[in-house]
Amino acid sequence: AMGTSSKPVIYINPGETLRIETEDCFSHQLVKATDSFDECVDFSKVNPASGPVFINGTSPGDTLKVFIKKIELDKQGVTVAIKDLGVLGYKVKSSQVEIIPIENDAIMFAGQKLPRRPMIGVIGVAPAEGEVPNSTPGDHGGNMDTLDVSPGNYIYLPVFVNGAYFAIGDIHATMGNGEVCGTGVECRAEVELTIDICTEYNWKIPVIETGDSFYFVGSADTMDHAVEKATNEAVMFLERTNRIPWNTAYMLASLSADVIVSQAVNPLKTARIRIPKSCLNI
Amino acid sequence: AMGTSSKPVIYINPGETLRIETEDCFSHQLVKATDSFDECVDFSKVNPASGPVFINGTSPGDTLKVFIKKIELDKQGVTVAIKDLGVLGYKVKSSQVEIIPIENDAIMFAGQKLPRRPMIGVIGVAPAEGEVPNSTPGDHGGNMDTLDVSPGNYIYLPVFVNGAYFAIGDIHATMGNGEVCGTGVECRAEVELTIDICTEYNWKIPVIETGDSFYFVGSADTMDHAVEKATNEAVMFLERTNRIPWNTAYMLASLSADVIVSQAVNPLKTARIRIPKSCLNI
Repeated sequence: AMGTSSKPVIYINPGETLRIETEDCFSHQLVKATDSFDECVDFSKVNPASGPVFINGTSPGDTLKVFIKKIELDKQGVTVAIKDLGVLGYKVKSSQVEIIPIENDAIMFAGQKLPRRPMIGVIGVAPAEGEVPNSTPGDHGGNMDTLDVSPGNYIYLPVFVNGAYFAIGDIHATMGNGEVCGTGVECRAEVELTIDICTEYNWKIPVIETGDSFYFVGSADTMDHAVEKATNEAVMFLERTNRIPWNTAYMLASLSADVIVSQAVNPLKTARIRIPKSCLNI
Repeated sequence: AMGTSSKPVIYINPGETLRIETEDCFSHQLVKATDSFDECVDFSKVNPASGPVFINGTSPGDTLKVFIKKIELDKQGVTVAIKDLGVLGYKVKSSQVEIIPIENDAIMFAGQKLPRRPMIGVIGVAPAEGEVPNSTPGDHGGNMDTLDVSPGNYIYLPVFVNGAYFAIGDIHATMGNGEVCGTGVECRAEVELTIDICTEYNWKIPVIETGDSFYFVGSADTMDHAVEKATNEAVMFLERTNRIPWNTAYMLASLSADVIVSQAVNPLKTARIRIPKSCLNI
């Protein structure tokens, strides 16, 4: 769970680069094509995260700025279709486990060549109070399953407790936006990232920065509420950054920003809205 | 409304190319910067569609195949922020009307240069029974506000009544996926398209074909249901086309297909899921 009940495994200073080993989302309980989901998987071991990392000097109200330098994937991953998992889980008659080799240039599944799109599924900090299960996303990050949390990009996370209690896990070798069956190509990985305190921005929800865009990430009980949450923060950002009236920022978002489904399958849903930097006075 | 109560304005044979003039979504009631939304707009004139076009020889169970050849935009468009319209309509304190010049290379708004992305907001056929208001999307098409309904692409629509009763309107010069404030750059246009009967596919919901992808378009009362509807049809297509078990098709969709929000602001919500042709045995 994301929270402060686990003791930090490491204390670092802002600006330090870490190399973190992550377990796959099933804690390596599914490794052979003959492994049966129902027999092999102990649910208490699903969605582990590595951490927490205590970042010295961070306190509530701060924003964490994490640069994702590198993701080194394991040589195989696993994808499952199981009953009641995902958008169409009610249509799964019997569970299926697929072990998928991860090659350098591509990932083959069902005779199709899929692009390698390494990304971090679970990344977050401790919430203000209590613990959030790793399977659940929220304002603190967590299981957002958002494809742009990938090498070369920054993710900003609001800090709710002293030290932030940062953790990651659930790396995917590839997935589609939406993750409709509930899994990507789930695999072990080693992730290199730099964790800093952000001096430029102060957001209430996770935000991703790529070369050409900012993505505001909203998680809520329904997709409609997730879209609203992401849009609300994005419009306020346009208003502040471009110094334009709120109404104008709202219209500018409508004309220029793209709403994308991050995942439609977790206990809370996640949507993100992309603001192109070409529309920002920065 | 989409339905059979209006007499067809033209009868054509499958394969014919039409050039259709469309009114903007406000029926040209907002043309000057000083036009007040509350004073100028008669709601009974909002979202007009041109048609219906009767396509000889079509009958229920057929699928229409429409190629969008060209969209010629008017020289100006309009965008509004009004109370209770869009994802954040509850935050609009007073209505605002923006007249936006449409240039050849770009569209300027709020000091930002937006790309020209002409698309058809309303495109559909008569439903099986009754009439659907033009403001509402559905399995028959209608107000899907889906950005890929644009020049160079095909849209497939299920046919519910003899002659299909095809109609279009609500052209946008540009918009973002999601159309979060409820409008794009709304403008008059002339649209050239070829309407045919599809011999290859038979879908229950609208589908768009681009050079590299198929987009399955789901509209429903909530975004979650819209995602489910689109995903369900897409997975069945992967199952049939690639001749793979349903479970495998479900996983393949999760690994390769992208869920995008078409619009989050109409009486029903619309999401689409993109299946790349590179994942199809076609």
